[in-house]
Amino acid sequence: MASAVGPGTAHVPELKNLTIENITENVHRINSQCSDPRLKYVMERLVSHLHDFARETRLSFDEWMAGIQFLTQVGQTCTQVRQEFILLSDIVGLSLLVDSIDHPKPPSSTKGTVLGPFHTHDASTLAPGSSISADPAGTPLLVLCTVKTISGDPVSGAKIDVWETDSHGKYDVQYDDRGDIPDGRAVIVSDDQGVFWFTAIVPVPYPIPNDGPVGNLLAKLGRHCWRPSHMHFMFEKEGFDHLVTALYIRGSDYETSDAVFGVKDSLIVALEDADAALAKQYNVKQGTKVLKYDFVLVTDEETKQLRHDEAVKAMEGLGRHGMMIVNGLPVPEVD
Amino acid sequence: MASAVGPGTAHVPELKNLTIENITENVHRINSQCSDPRLKYVMERLVSHLHDFARETRLSFDEWMAGIQFLTQVGQTCTQVRQEFILLSDIVGLSLLVDSIDHPKPPSSTKGTVLGPFHTHDASTLAPGSSISADPAGTPLLVLCTVKTISGDPVSGAKIDVWETDSHGKYDVQYDDRGDIPDGRAVIVSDDQGVFWFTAIVPVPYPIPNDGPVGNLLAKLGRHCWRPSHMHFMFEKEGFDHLVTALYIRGSDYETSDAVFGVKDSLIVALEDADAALAKQYNVKQGTKVLKYDFVLVTDEETKQLRHDEAVKAMEGLGRHGMMIVNGLPVPEVD
Repeated sequence: MASAVGPGTAHVPELKNLTIENITENVHRINSQCSDPRLKYVMERLVSHLHDFARETRLSFDEWMAGIQFLTQVGQTCTQVRQEFILLSDIVGLSLLVDSIDHPKPPSSTKGTVLGPFHTHDASTLAPGSSISADPAGTPLLVLCTVKTISGDPVSGAKIDVWETDSHGKYDVQYDDRGDIPDGRAVIVSDDQGVFWFTAIVPVPYPIPNDGPVGNLLAKLGRHCWRPSHMHFMFEKEGFDHLVTALYIRGSDYETSDAVFGVKDSLIVALEDADAALAKQYNVKQGTKVLKYDFVLVTDEETKQLRHDEAVKAMEGLGRHGMMIVNGLPVPEVD
Repeated sequence: MASAVGPGTAHVPELKNLTIENITENVHRINSQCSDPRLKYVMERLVSHLHDFARETRLSFDEWMAGIQFLTQVGQTCTQVRQEFILLSDIVGLSLLVDSIDHPKPPSSTKGTVLGPFHTHDASTLAPGSSISADPAGTPLLVLCTVKTISGDPVSGAKIDVWETDSHGKYDVQYDDRGDIPDGRAVIVSDDQGVFWFTAIVPVPYPIPNDGPVGNLLAKLGRHCWRPSHMHFMFEKEGFDHLVTALYIRGSDYETSDAVFGVKDSLIVALEDADAALAKQYNVKQGTKVLKYDFVLVTDEETKQLRHDEAVKAMEGLGRHGMMIVNGLPVPEVD
């Protein structure tokens, strides 16, 4: 008989007769062969929750198949310029949660928020005071910021990625004819005083891509697909924890119902109007809208310590004993 | 300002300042706009488990991104003849669990198991005693079965789909040059006595498709990708619950470590050797391997009642109060 020959099974744990009740422990037993303790733990929690989900909902075959087809569609909607799984993660609050866990922030520092799918790596580095937007239909905006440490020292030479939509609520990458020059995005570098500034346009609300499976899901849930007006900021500086955040414009539509759960109170900013002095200093018209914010970065060391401490506290809070924290991540202690 | 205009937000629940602790209730609040009570409940459980998973593992951004990329790959590996998400569901025991929940079986009936990704709808309907396999390298097998009700009455006219691999452990659809005539699969119809029989080849163990992301995951988990020798059976007969099952050959490699958790004790069968009388009756050589099994179907009515009763019992067991069971599926009672 021309049978294919597989590996031996001498050391493979034996499955029991499988039932609704014991399938979970059986999957854990088979997965216990994993030599990476962190992956083993992540899979153990994932399988437990997945099975509990099916048991608590009495998930039907038809619902399971609808889920399989949905996830397949999500995967097949992804392209070089569209990440539908990140969008799915965003609209169920997972992205915000993971960012909050992985980038813990002391009270006095700037909170992070969702990255979203529209950051690119090709933005031009512009001189202070440059305009990042070429859209003539946008409302002009002056952006005046500083970046400092928790103790108030300026952070100079920080590389700051900023990006926003045009006045139609679209990022440059959402146009088929985007062209060679990125628009509505730039890299700015903070000066010796930790100051960085540029001109842009007042952000507008926009719908997240809603012509795919995630848009269909939102419609079935009776949810809108809009994000309130915001501008993205991402900070890179050696020695400091990478900060992905955004500023939200006070009073924007959808401020309290962001489709991707990105808004945090401390990131909402009321725009001001440039007075005569400010207008003169920054060479803009009097009355121009002004966005001011003082960002506060956290060092890698502080973040590492905080990540460890919060992981310890979280495991205690969840009543999960016998865990080690390795590089900020819980791993079961070896018996 | 040429801003896009979205729907109003007058009746949209307001999100609070989002934290690791309150993000879950906030997502539930936004999803509470869903007008389908079952979908609302399924999403509520799904989001709770997804968030608890992230909190219990302190899921890092890098791990989240690895997950996003993995799921994207799984979706993009799916084709007309390959369903990698079903394979993923299979190897974490979810498929077996969902089948067990959705097709509850009284003790005396035949248990269901995983459908797998290789069933097709184009198999020929063959006369009793036909051969379903054209593979000359296979070991001949005589398959003698009956299909009855729980009370022992024959079920005549049942449409039975059977499918198996060739002697190399491959289903016909796994060959690029499959040709027009399906092989290793057929539809057989039970006679007045509930009997159906055919010839085939003795099933062999085979690896599930392991050149994609699911195969990579199994390797990382230290798991083999093999299934023990088995033959698939699917029963359709009006008035009876659709039965998807398989028979496993006693003593096969991987009998206790099936990569997709399909084996149940009651579905394992020891092959016999045809004696002179049997060989003569069925026109096979003496000593030919014989697979005998008596399948027992459950009526739609019995299944419906059992599904309801088990859902009630499961909700009680889980301590989930205030649930109605609608068509066998739990739905929260309206306040």
